[in-house]
Amino acid sequence: MIPRYSRPEMTTIWSPESKFRIWFEIEAHACDALAELGVIPKSAAATIWEKGKAAEFDVDRIDEIERETKHDVIAFLTHLAEIVGPDARFVHQGMTSSDVLDTCFNVQLVKASDILLADMDKLLEAVKKRALEHKDTITIGRSHGIHAEPTTFGVKLAFAYAEFERCRTRLEAAREEIATCAISGAVGTFANIDPRVEEHVASAMGLKAEPVSTQVIPRDRHAMFFATLGVIASSVERLSVEIRHLQRTEVLEAEEYFSPGQKGSSAMPHKRNPVLTENLTGLARMVRSYAMPAMENVALWHERDISHSSVERMIGPDATVTLDFALARLTGVIEKLVVYPETMLANLNKFKGLVHSQRVLLALTQAGVSREDAYRLVQRNAMKVWEDGKDFLTELLADKDVRAALSEEDLREKFDLGYHTKQVDAIFKRVFG
Amino acid sequence: MIPRYSRPEMTTIWSPESKFRIWFEIEAHACDALAELGVIPKSAAATIWEKGKAAEFDVDRIDEIERETKHDVIAFLTHLAEIVGPDARFVHQGMTSSDVLDTCFNVQLVKASDILLADMDKLLEAVKKRALEHKDTITIGRSHGIHAEPTTFGVKLAFAYAEFERCRTRLEAAREEIATCAISGAVGTFANIDPRVEEHVASAMGLKAEPVSTQVIPRDRHAMFFATLGVIASSVERLSVEIRHLQRTEVLEAEEYFSPGQKGSSAMPHKRNPVLTENLTGLARMVRSYAMPAMENVALWHERDISHSSVERMIGPDATVTLDFALARLTGVIEKLVVYPETMLANLNKFKGLVHSQRVLLALTQAGVSREDAYRLVQRNAMKVWEDGKDFLTELLADKDVRAALSEEDLREKFDLGYHTKQVDAIFKRVFG
Amino acid sequence: MIPRYSRPEMTTIWSPESKFRIWFEIEAHACDALAELGVIPKSAAATIWEKGKAAEFDVDRIDEIERETKHDVIAFLTHLAEIVGPDARFVHQGMTSSDVLDTCFNVQLVKASDILLADMDKLLEAVKKRALEHKDTITIGRSHGIHAEPTTFGVKLAFAYAEFERCRTRLEAAREEIATCAISGAVGTFANIDPRVEEHVASAMGLKAEPVSTQVIPRDRHAMFFATLGVIASSVERLSVEIRHLQRTEVLEAEEYFSPGQKGSSAMPHKRNPVLTENLTGLARMVRSYAMPAMENVALWHERDISHSSVERMIGPDATVTLDFALARLTGVIEKLVVYPETMLANLNKFKGLVHSQRVLLALTQAGVSREDAYRLVQRNAMKVWEDGKDFLTELLADKDVRAALSEEDLREKFDLGYHTKQVDAIFKRVFG
Amino acid sequence: MIPRYSRPEMTTIWSPESKFRIWFEIEAHACDALAELGVIPKSAAATIWEKGKAAEFDVDRIDEIERETKHDVIAFLTHLAEIVGPDARFVHQGMTSSDVLDTCFNVQLVKASDILLADMDKLLEAVKKRALEHKDTITIGRSHGIHAEPTTFGVKLAFAYAEFERCRTRLEAAREEIATCAISGAVGTFANIDPRVEEHVASAMGLKAEPVSTQVIPRDRHAMFFATLGVIASSVERLSVEIRHLQRTEVLEAEEYFSPGQKGSSAMPHKRNPVLTENLTGLARMVRSYAMPAMENVALWHERDISHSSVERMIGPDATVTLDFALARLTGVIEKLVVYPETMLANLNKFKGLVHSQRVLLALTQAGVSREDAYRLVQRNAMKVWEDGKDFLTELLADKDVRAALSEEDLREKFDLGYHTKQVDAIFKRVFG
Repeated sequence: MIPRYSRPEMTTIWSPESKFRIWFEIEAHACDALAELGVIPKSAAATIWEKGKAAEFDVDRIDEIERETKHDVIAFLTHLAEIVGPDARFVHQGMTSSDVLDTCFNVQLVKASDILLADMDKLLEAVKKRALEHKDTITIGRSHGIHAEPTTFGVKLAFAYAEFERCRTRLEAAREEIATCAISGAVGTFANIDPRVEEHVASAMGLKAEPVSTQVIPRDRHAMFFATLGVIASSVERLSVEIRHLQRTEVLEAEEYFSPGQKGSSAMPHKRNPVLTENLTGLARMVRSYAMPAMENVALWHERDISHSSVERMIGPDATVTLDFALARLTGVIEKLVVYPETMLANLNKFKGLVHSQRVLLALTQAGVSREDAYRLVQRNAMKVWEDGKDFLTELLADKDVRAALSEEDLREKFDLGYHTKQVDAIFKRVFG
Repeated sequence: MIPRYSRPEMTTIWSPESKFRIWFEIEAHACDALAELGVIPKSAAATIWEKGKAAEFDVDRIDEIERETKHDVIAFLTHLAEIVGPDARFVHQGMTSSDVLDTCFNVQLVKASDILLADMDKLLEAVKKRALEHKDTITIGRSHGIHAEPTTFGVKLAFAYAEFERCRTRLEAAREEIATCAISGAVGTFANIDPRVEEHVASAMGLKAEPVSTQVIPRDRHAMFFATLGVIASSVERLSVEIRHLQRTEVLEAEEYFSPGQKGSSAMPHKRNPVLTENLTGLARMVRSYAMPAMENVALWHERDISHSSVERMIGPDATVTLDFALARLTGVIEKLVVYPETMLANLNKFKGLVHSQRVLLALTQAGVSREDAYRLVQRNAMKVWEDGKDFLTELLADKDVRAALSEEDLREKFDLGYHTKQVDAIFKRVFG
Repeated sequence: MIPRYSRPEMTTIWSPESKFRIWFEIEAHACDALAELGVIPKSAAATIWEKGKAAEFDVDRIDEIERETKHDVIAFLTHLAEIVGPDARFVHQGMTSSDVLDTCFNVQLVKASDILLADMDKLLEAVKKRALEHKDTITIGRSHGIHAEPTTFGVKLAFAYAEFERCRTRLEAAREEIATCAISGAVGTFANIDPRVEEHVASAMGLKAEPVSTQVIPRDRHAMFFATLGVIASSVERLSVEIRHLQRTEVLEAEEYFSPGQKGSSAMPHKRNPVLTENLTGLARMVRSYAMPAMENVALWHERDISHSSVERMIGPDATVTLDFALARLTGVIEKLVVYPETMLANLNKFKGLVHSQRVLLALTQAGVSREDAYRLVQRNAMKVWEDGKDFLTELLADKDVRAALSEEDLREKFDLGYHTKQVDAIFKRVFG
Repeated sequence: MIPRYSRPEMTTIWSPESKFRIWFEIEAHACDALAELGVIPKSAAATIWEKGKAAEFDVDRIDEIERETKHDVIAFLTHLAEIVGPDARFVHQGMTSSDVLDTCFNVQLVKASDILLADMDKLLEAVKKRALEHKDTITIGRSHGIHAEPTTFGVKLAFAYAEFERCRTRLEAAREEIATCAISGAVGTFANIDPRVEEHVASAMGLKAEPVSTQVIPRDRHAMFFATLGVIASSVERLSVEIRHLQRTEVLEAEEYFSPGQKGSSAMPHKRNPVLTENLTGLARMVRSYAMPAMENVALWHERDISHSSVERMIGPDATVTLDFALARLTGVIEKLVVYPETMLANLNKFKGLVHSQRVLLALTQAGVSREDAYRLVQRNAMKVWEDGKDFLTELLADKDVRAALSEEDLREKFDLGYHTKQVDAIFKRVFG
């Protein structure tokens, strides 16, 4: 997480101020439940809420106390006591630091997920808009980087849409994974705190109670969360790589938007680089890499150790901030993507008409020519296109052996691009409903 | 995937024989649909089924043809033609190799998932059985590897149960991810094949039609699948590491089963090593590592390239076979785990009664002693236990300042282990219902 | 490691036969040293060598014994005793299984390294040959996939040569890392075996004695080894991706060799796919992924645990066999690479002469035109090339403002491609000496 | 990289101020070389040095210009021009941004390496000191977490010393990898800049000239660099895990230092947690994870793309700052580690004398008892120790069958711990010379 690749709404989640505010809410909700259960006075719970809500927590002061106590939660509670007064002694009754820390981390991840889901919705909207716009924009489909058969640019985007919809579903499942709360005390036995406190806090914070925790919330949940972010980042990479390919000088079927005043890096007006999607490719590598330490975090020792903590202090912000930035950047790229339908057509026709050779081959076989002969006939005409730049249809029309099997009308019909796009409606119906 | 860590049911899925059988089924089901649509004769479809079903595909013969054609699907189709006869020319109409390869790979992954789900059920059953058995077996809970507060061995296992139940849910979602079928022809446009063929094959093979494919089934699905396996493997590691810890010479609260005749590695009868769970720790590292190439596979170029293929030929078998083996091995370890409740109790009491010091501290404060004084009182008695091996309760009872605040009865009550386990029923209810 | 991506010389290293042969040699060399030290009779050592050397170890028999003893080294020693007779009791005196297993693993890795080094030499030779051949073959250099400035195809290959030379140096260092031998007994204290035995075996097997081992050879060595293989695989990927780019339909400056009889996947003669380099891209992902579990293997518990073993049984063969195959395949691709210098030139001139715009700009500023004016002058002519397909030099020559600063001769000189390649000799001298 | 796990000396390297200072030095040294070659006036070079050296670069101002130009190097050069005046037009002649950026990144990595090397020296010193101190401190060696044979705590540390010495050597090699400079202009052809400029700048900045670059310095160098850091982090993890194990309540042979006033997390005086080494375990996971994106960065497209940039802006600081912090923290842990030799001895004797059973077994066989009988004799006495807490030597002395083969003196001699440590001097000589 570095400012260059960060957006404020997401980084705010990870600020000390946000963290302490969440800590306070967890403690105050717990007080409500404890008061309801008669463990602490109701008036105390009310005071804690009132004073804590009004206060701004002083991060420097808390840091100062932590330098002394070497314990962040105690430092916060001490500062809270400075604000709340004597009733502060009713805060944190029967709880452990992990109850606060782990529940807070999950609250932060849930908030981050909500931003990511909104990001995804915007990305989906942008992709859909451009897909509909280019539903019938003919372009060549490529396998292995080599021309294959025609498709439309809209179909390419429909594919991305379907992929990001899957990503959205995964993100929702990932959010669900970490939307839990644990207030279970030392080693998770509830010895000093009633499970009903946990249920209350969970509900108040928009979470579910963790069915069984061991002081810490189990880290397989977080492993799944960060692994999912890694998969989503890989899909960001996929669309980014597609755009980088399309913007290559020799292809130039689409390119990232350049503002009017913007200059390329040199005097050459064609020197517009797909720097945004290259950047996204790198960011995807980063988000993906965070999945590994998250998985290594699962096997904590016994009821818990604290090795996960340093990892999460890093990847919590790093993964969510970076993916948020990446999704927003990709949305912008798609929204403003400059598309060149004429170049698409020109590229498709690079080898004049050759893209239809397979259909001619099939037509010949269907007309009774053996497959071997048909292949030979097609190939000898194709070679003139390939090597001498001739027009494929013209050559075929002039080939007696071909004409023995196929009429001019037959042949012309095989050069209809519409043949390849006749199912585009069906595909769009599947994807966009 | 090596024989030492493989089980036949799973490896069979990945045999050439299985693969060719699935290829045949995909082709034959497609023929049914093509016949239904009137594209090929119904009699041809019937013949293809009849002859293909009866035949055993000759792997050596197919390999021989592949050496010539350098194309595995063509080699198979050629061999199929040798079996089916003239009607074979109606096979594979309008399809691409990817239609067969990708659908087959997903069929194999679905079959593998089904085995893994069954493995998981057995593991859950074993964990549950031992959890119920040891619901009330008192043991020390540990944070940071250091004694914390008492819990029960059953609660430890309940925790594992909840974790593997989450893993099961994730595995089902992962199975769903890859349970799709694509029969969409070159670059996925259905130009040469009706989408209804895809729908028929999908349904016949127990899959869903891929909403939009680009000749290949999108690899974000597989990335999610293998990432999920990596998370599950990490949970296998967690429970394995727990057992390795419990079997340490100094702890020895549980150990892997050793058969009567089995000898440790030397003359020392205590030399029983937790080799199975150590092995599982290593296998987890492997399964986890396969998530990375699976994620890198997502960003194929344009409609498809073939870089994913070599990766999947390896990690398809490697990840599923290894995880299957690991789940089964872990199940065996849990089923036969030798548990030593007396050692658990002895370890818990290593520092005589000290485990109750926190309750005494709380009782003192509740009795009106200031927190600072209470801490001092507890600590000066605790030190005698810690350094001189005295009994904590005896020392407290003899301390006048303590007794000024707490009666003997009060003090004795604080040494009740039941205090820590009073919520075990509630926890079990949450986990096992 | 699957047969499709394996070469026999490398797989042989990992066969049971090879392993048992190495085990025998370690044991027999140890016997020599023990005999020299007077611990066992010299005649016994002689007999062990004589009988063991002549014998073929029966893998099935050893497996059979292992099923009984559940210990692979004991199974081997038992079988060896069947071959050697009574003198077998002098084998393995004071040694542990790890002494044999770890030293053997390192012998295997050293042998594998030697093959990889030979592979690398062949690759370097192939790259050098083609680099020299195309030293002066003009081609466009690309940044961001966008045309930048001219270079030569030989320079591109010189770059690859320099990279693989670095890889060779790294591979030698990696070989050095794992070329160690440990014969140090339980927990590595030499309590039951003299360090001179270790020194003798090390020297006899072409290894160095591990300065200090803990029953096992430390796994940071292996982590470094496999990480290095991952880096090398990434360089294989780099050159492979370059070729995949060059073979794209729109670029087509080079392509993988297709044998005369070979057919593309369809009737289209241009449909030649860069399947070998795509395959190499996938294989690189695999080799890279093995670095992670190798690093996780480092932190074994105390003097040793056995969690590394399952990992190494997999990645030992997987990483070396796959990289060997990849290096050989890449060598073949380079040797036979079909290069199209005319297309290179045509691509370079896609925008007629525009590639020289930067030099014209510099010349204008050097002739006293302000940078802003110069940019404007260049751009207005460049736009005619870019948008209307005009010839850049023609336009410049016809532009009065340009001509006010630069003569025709001046301008023509700026269109000299030789300007860009004048340092090629210097670069080649640096790389090839 | 977060403040909590950062040390100022290392973070300073990555500050904007440091970066701009290095950029300036690269440009200024290049001017010297250009002046020497007569390309620019010597007086200009002198002015540039003089003014630039005296100036403080205004990061906010540069950021402001970058927001306009969207190009960081141009922004810097513009700001430099504001400082230097008209002579600034002679700066950056014939260079590209990459020349500055890549050379600067390598300068930063070299500086970071130098700090890491110094860290490593301090760690080695600390480990050596404690190793010598505990050279003869008897402790049990453990395999699989199970007691094996005696060793000394000094030998354990000698092992760590040897491992970190290897890490130091690797770190030096990694430093060498990235200690290169490229000033080669667009696509690395030196068309607009003389190679002698590169040589001068390289030498002036303490680097070597990159033999052949492609506008960018090849990223296999950086992959190797970050992979090496990952391996080193894994060794940090190994020693940290050892300490975590030793500090377990049941083992407690050593523990991290707690300052006198420091309190554990609760009233229990034994509740001292190995939080520093747990933290190091997590940090190791992070440093390790950065190796993957670094390897993925290698395969840039053609002469270069910019996907590596976002990765390196993150892992450059993240990996070096985190490893620096980890090495320093580990050094502190080792320096202050509290070692309990008496507990080590007590643990070793947990099963009274049983640790010597292997020697008794060997002695019996050497005295002519068959191996099977010897095993039976040892085991029947060992079982009394294992199950009934008897003393092993006492039992053996009372066993007639044992005594038939071994005298009391013989038996007593087998219980000499010195037997296991007799080679400690030899091991220390190997490690410490």
